[in-house]
Amino acid sequence: MIDNNEGSKTSRRGFLTSAAAAGGAALTAGAAKAASGDSAILETQNWNSELGVGVDAAPYGVPSEHEKHVKRRNVEWLTADTVSSINFTPLHELDGIITPNGLCFERHHGGVAEVEPALHRIMINGLVDTPLVFTMQDLLRFPRENRIFFLECAANSGMEWRGAQLNGCQFTHGMIHNVMYTGVPLRYLLEEAGVKTAGKWIMPEGADASGLTRSIPLEKALDDCLVAFKMNGEALRPEQGYPVRLVVPGWEGNMWIKWLRRIEVGDQPWHHREETSKYTDLLANGKARRFTWEMDAKSVITNPSPQAPLTHGPGPTVLTGVAWSGRGTIPQVDVTTDGGINWHKARISGPSLDKSMHRFYYEFDWDGSELLLQSRAHDNTGYVQPTKDQLRAVRGTNSIYHNNGIQTWSVNAEGVAENVEIS
Amino acid sequence: MIDNNEGSKTSRRGFLTSAAAAGGAALTAGAAKAASGDSAILETQNWNSELGVGVDAAPYGVPSEHEKHVKRRNVEWLTADTVSSINFTPLHELDGIITPNGLCFERHHGGVAEVEPALHRIMINGLVDTPLVFTMQDLLRFPRENRIFFLECAANSGMEWRGAQLNGCQFTHGMIHNVMYTGVPLRYLLEEAGVKTAGKWIMPEGADASGLTRSIPLEKALDDCLVAFKMNGEALRPEQGYPVRLVVPGWEGNMWIKWLRRIEVGDQPWHHREETSKYTDLLANGKARRFTWEMDAKSVITNPSPQAPLTHGPGPTVLTGVAWSGRGTIPQVDVTTDGGINWHKARISGPSLDKSMHRFYYEFDWDGSELLLQSRAHDNTGYVQPTKDQLRAVRGTNSIYHNNGIQTWSVNAEGVAENVEIS
Repeated sequence: MIDNNEGSKTSRRGFLTSAAAAGGAALTAGAAKAASGDSAILETQNWNSELGVGVDAAPYGVPSEHEKHVKRRNVEWLTADTVSSINFTPLHELDGIITPNGLCFERHHGGVAEVEPALHRIMINGLVDTPLVFTMQDLLRFPRENRIFFLECAANSGMEWRGAQLNGCQFTHGMIHNVMYTGVPLRYLLEEAGVKTAGKWIMPEGADASGLTRSIPLEKALDDCLVAFKMNGEALRPEQGYPVRLVVPGWEGNMWIKWLRRIEVGDQPWHHREETSKYTDLLANGKARRFTWEMDAKSVITNPSPQAPLTHGPGPTVLTGVAWSGRGTIPQVDVTTDGGINWHKARISGPSLDKSMHRFYYEFDWDGSELLLQSRAHDNTGYVQPTKDQLRAVRGTNSIYHNNGIQTWSVNAEGVAENVEIS
Repeated sequence: MIDNNEGSKTSRRGFLTSAAAAGGAALTAGAAKAASGDSAILETQNWNSELGVGVDAAPYGVPSEHEKHVKRRNVEWLTADTVSSINFTPLHELDGIITPNGLCFERHHGGVAEVEPALHRIMINGLVDTPLVFTMQDLLRFPRENRIFFLECAANSGMEWRGAQLNGCQFTHGMIHNVMYTGVPLRYLLEEAGVKTAGKWIMPEGADASGLTRSIPLEKALDDCLVAFKMNGEALRPEQGYPVRLVVPGWEGNMWIKWLRRIEVGDQPWHHREETSKYTDLLANGKARRFTWEMDAKSVITNPSPQAPLTHGPGPTVLTGVAWSGRGTIPQVDVTTDGGINWHKARISGPSLDKSMHRFYYEFDWDGSELLLQSRAHDNTGYVQPTKDQLRAVRGTNSIYHNNGIQTWSVNAEGVAENVEIS
């Protein structure tokens, strides 16, 4: 059963009536002060007794001291060295659909390359009429586009194939970010070089110590890929490929080559390390799925979640989360609070853009009993996010990639949330 | 005469052909190296000879060392003290439509208040059925919305009333930013308190040393105002009102009360300092326009501009800028390179959202001769951005507010740009 939470005026008023009652209860002291006049409440907040700092303090601004806990975190046991490791976006601390640049997760194979933009070059070679080398300034002479896209690592939620492993959406789902890119459509650069008739694939290459390469079909390269130099308005961050990266919308993050220095055009895929021993999905029968680039529709509840317990007690409660699909938009997200007995249509707020993160909310009146929370994304192709068990039945549990199964959080009467599995 | 630059395939191919020719000329050395094989070009970029820094380096990331020049700047002579001063968004260094939080301009009347969120309260009082006090946690129990809005200071471009004054779009137009807000619609909080029939205005009040207050008609408060706690996904920055500010879409920035601590409901405007001696437009006859809240449609070319000269010489050139309107969207921006003899329809790229910044581009083949650049925004109500002289004819030159006149940059043969006025 799915009901509809998409804000008829009647249902919203119903919610607000509940909020008024619970808010009143929760706020007795404050409300009493308010009733006795301005001075009583205002004396509790003396923020305005002194002048604050002025505009010279931070030519490039930073978050409040009270937000020091909001940061990317890594899992120390996951890799041997931090130069080939991962940290995770704190999804449980964010809202809306934009990931601020300072909190976008990182994954490197040889650390963050230190590239000087004035000396950097991008070469196009291989099966082209005219091999070309572009400076950063050359790139700025081509028409640009601005698009908001999610980038998800293929290994996001990868530990969850073998059961509930990591206690927090930052760790289970935090290898994703969603920013606005400014870049030159890759097709303009390829057209400039002139792809020969035999050219069917491209191989972008990174300038970092790992010299990362991937094979991408020419069709995708000519479709919506960008050679991007800005994210959320400003220059790419070093850990995101400064000064230039490839944007491969909807496809796994490993293909979005950072510190882009070369694009070779060829007639077949290269079968390099990152598309054979890595980033393929080993099935139970020993065969591997390959070329599994497109990220399937997925969602996760970010609040409440293990790192963001329900501390306010029973009453009006806002559940929120994010959903995305490598195939397009997310017209619908369903939410359950009882482990799938009843499903409710969540409210999506914010721009619904192609291959971009969507933000959903479900407002409900918590009675203080245990919750089993799940979300389920539908994309605009009709694809519905599967359960983890449905995925395991088809793909086994050898892989660490492409786990887009439904995530479950339990919430106990104290509001403490845990990563759990239910059948 | 207005021609159409909106990318028919023919005109784009025409541009790319030019780019190929010029690119080839500009890149002789690089192109030659490319032709001789991979190794020659790659030996010029040894970024991958050493491992880079790992993921522990920056739990909250910062820009590249090569981007140190990208910062908010103030004009030291403008105010007596930095606690009541302004710094400016570096528009000429940005692209797309999102302003990153670290680069959003600041304007304070008593410095940045240091507010501790756990102790902060928001009171609603005055002509309401039930005066209420909300904690930050209470606020999070109401339904939220996510919207991208521009915020423009009423004094943006204010120095330009009396002729071309400031040499750079950061200073002439940089009192604007555009971010995604997450917040609770103000109407939910007012409905919770219950506005009495006599209540027609609200007065939000800030918790900073200036205790800033403004009068806002109830109709606007119930329409699209948000009580916001996140910007671009993360907590508000201290200088933007952490932990909570009012968002008054499309209206002058001074009304977007930061460090929001109180909202009083009344039956008439309060006529406080910020809406009488300040933020009114003194006309030539000594009378003042008041209640001029809605920001008129406006645009500015950000590149090239005085801080961003045309350094690449003649040939394919990308002109870009931003446009916005307090009334809605921007369906069209016109650009001229010859001081208004010929106008070209610019290409808009990125989401076109209500009361949000729009990014426009005009790609042209620069012949190296002097340019007189202007942009002209049209909004979806049919309003067209006027010239500065048209504004002066109606409003005189006493005011420092609400100058949305067309901006002119001259560009000489060396590519140096200047702020100029033409009749």
